[in-house]
Amino acid sequence: MKTPNKTNTAQPPHNSRRNFARGALAAAALTGVGMFAPRRAQAQPKGAPEVKWRMATSWPTNFPIFEHGALRFAENVAAMSGGRMQIEVDSASKHKAAFDVFDYVREGQFEMGHSCSYYWKGKDASLTTLSAMPFGMNAQEFNAWFWYDGGIELMNAAYARHGMYSYNAGNTGVQMGGWFRKEIRTLADFHGLKMRIPGLAGEVLARIGANPVVIPGGELYTSLERGVIDALEWVGPHMDISMGFQQIAKYYYTGWHEPGTELQYLINREKYDALPEDLRRILQVAMRESSFDMLCESEYRNAETWAQLHRDYPDVQIRSFPREVLDALDRETNAVLDEMVAASPDSAAIIDSQRAFLKKAAAWTAVSRGDFYRVRELTGADLMA
Amino acid sequence: MKTPNKTNTAQPPHNSRRNFARGALAAAALTGVGMFAPRRAQAQPKGAPEVKWRMATSWPTNFPIFEHGALRFAENVAAMSGGRMQIEVDSASKHKAAFDVFDYVREGQFEMGHSCSYYWKGKDASLTTLSAMPFGMNAQEFNAWFWYDGGIELMNAAYARHGMYSYNAGNTGVQMGGWFRKEIRTLADFHGLKMRIPGLAGEVLARIGANPVVIPGGELYTSLERGVIDALEWVGPHMDISMGFQQIAKYYYTGWHEPGTELQYLINREKYDALPEDLRRILQVAMRESSFDMLCESEYRNAETWAQLHRDYPDVQIRSFPREVLDALDRETNAVLDEMVAASPDSAAIIDSQRAFLKKAAAWTAVSRGDFYRVRELTGADLMA
Repeated sequence: MKTPNKTNTAQPPHNSRRNFARGALAAAALTGVGMFAPRRAQAQPKGAPEVKWRMATSWPTNFPIFEHGALRFAENVAAMSGGRMQIEVDSASKHKAAFDVFDYVREGQFEMGHSCSYYWKGKDASLTTLSAMPFGMNAQEFNAWFWYDGGIELMNAAYARHGMYSYNAGNTGVQMGGWFRKEIRTLADFHGLKMRIPGLAGEVLARIGANPVVIPGGELYTSLERGVIDALEWVGPHMDISMGFQQIAKYYYTGWHEPGTELQYLINREKYDALPEDLRRILQVAMRESSFDMLCESEYRNAETWAQLHRDYPDVQIRSFPREVLDALDRETNAVLDEMVAASPDSAAIIDSQRAFLKKAAAWTAVSRGDFYRVRELTGADLMA
Repeated sequence: MKTPNKTNTAQPPHNSRRNFARGALAAAALTGVGMFAPRRAQAQPKGAPEVKWRMATSWPTNFPIFEHGALRFAENVAAMSGGRMQIEVDSASKHKAAFDVFDYVREGQFEMGHSCSYYWKGKDASLTTLSAMPFGMNAQEFNAWFWYDGGIELMNAAYARHGMYSYNAGNTGVQMGGWFRKEIRTLADFHGLKMRIPGLAGEVLARIGANPVVIPGGELYTSLERGVIDALEWVGPHMDISMGFQQIAKYYYTGWHEPGTELQYLINREKYDALPEDLRRILQVAMRESSFDMLCESEYRNAETWAQLHRDYPDVQIRSFPREVLDALDRETNAVLDEMVAASPDSAAIIDSQRAFLKKAAAWTAVSRGDFYRVRELTGADLMA
């Protein structure tokens, strides 16, 4: 997934020559919020708000989907509280420090943050798999774990050590495995390959001989174009195509490393505990609603963009990694996770619980959605003709 | 899916000899609502509520998952409004008319309903596929269509004809294809087969020579046991096992007919329009949050129950329908849908939109989740060991 640019987030990941998703982006501000007519109306604050908060995001201004989720949440809080609570959303383009959101919220400079737990790996490695685990749970399974198998409690036990609460903020769905200038035919093709890929997945790639690097989003297109890197992964079709990678790298691989990446809200504990009970509940329900909405929006925009991709860039080749590559990635993923479990009881608490649920969830998924996809592909020509 | 018992909903679908899910059911009241401690507290009404509403559900008291969704919604509305709005939830065990929820809300006897659109097929056939379409969209795709591709607007245009608004209330995930006493090996095995299966799917089965019947939930176990029917479908593992079907029918088939059944809230239009703006928004966000929660709960309980099923009932045989059966079901599904489209512009507006999005969504699903499930099954032995 994307790593926000720490020092220069002013440049949005769109530019004029590769912005065919811009229309969709503008539409994002309008759709999904409205149902029947009265809902579209903005709530008018009844005089000055009782509570004014600020939320720092890790995304530049106009960052697709993610920014919409943050704004949608704030707008719902204002409307549900009749204007009593207002949350100002500051993008990383404004506060200039995408990776300081954790500290901002911990120290109370911002009451809330909108970010992703695996960015805090250096501060507390146990937070990493709260966002994503290679070969792990997809969005639907992850949400079942968070809300019904104790995941949210484990996440909050972890963040309590840092004076914060945390809450799910949305899911990207399955992220694609990335754009490659050359086809990957064997495990050896990864030897020495320079790939932009952050987090756990980068660690795994290093173990199979690749050279993972971290490059700010704003420099990715140029880095790939000039051969500074051979490959990169970003998010999925909607966000990737807006970056223009398809103009340089023709091989687009399916995903293994972030099967359902979950974003997180961070909330300063003291500030939250000082709120009246109705506003606390308004925050919780609005956070959860926005988390659901982000997955809906991601699925919609990826489906639309996927159809466009085939039409507008027919020479893009869709590939899955060969079996020997997948086996090696899986083996090294487990080695990394095992080391994390051995190194820290905090990591063990989270990873052990995730692995236990994954085993059950994957079995059910295979027989329900997995088999249904098979059936639909088998017979789908009629219905989808 | 289940058809609630029209005349006798007093009997919950559990009884003492087949209630191993009861513990899970009791836990449902406690989980998923609580995050960090303050959230578990009940909001105290500040004096008498300004607005008192009643919501009629189509489910008997203690009906798993669905009832929790309705209660959760009402509790969130009370808490977010600081007690200003209270919604009393009346189960079908109380109001005694599961299938009259539509009329109750239309006529204003209840301000809201919690039910499923395909129950109103006889009143307005165009509402049917707002709940489920055989071989159609699964939960994640369906939600993308509802919230970003105009589905919610189409649904409300349809319900406006009946003086109501409608809003999504939750999703069961992929429903299983049902329990069969004899294995289905060929299309001919369906000839004359008496199966309890309602709705569109029943119509499709009739066209391949089966004899679909509708039997109230409370009589299903006995009907199957006594051979009144040869097969039935209900929902999925969690709800099915609590009914005890696995004690009679050994063949449990994967799904095709309800790939992501969506429940609906019904809201009386006049009553809703009379609400102040903050309460309207509170209702909308609480409805949407409860809709998300139901899918989380369904996935969690089905995953847990699936693991139990293999342990406790090892002689249950999991099957997929043979290719010739699936092809016939798909062909007849499309024939039924084509006839609906030709018969009514109202049906056409909804079905045409659903089919158009399904085509795009299924392609993206196949390459994202579909391929990821394949990868995970291929390599999954390590991570899930």
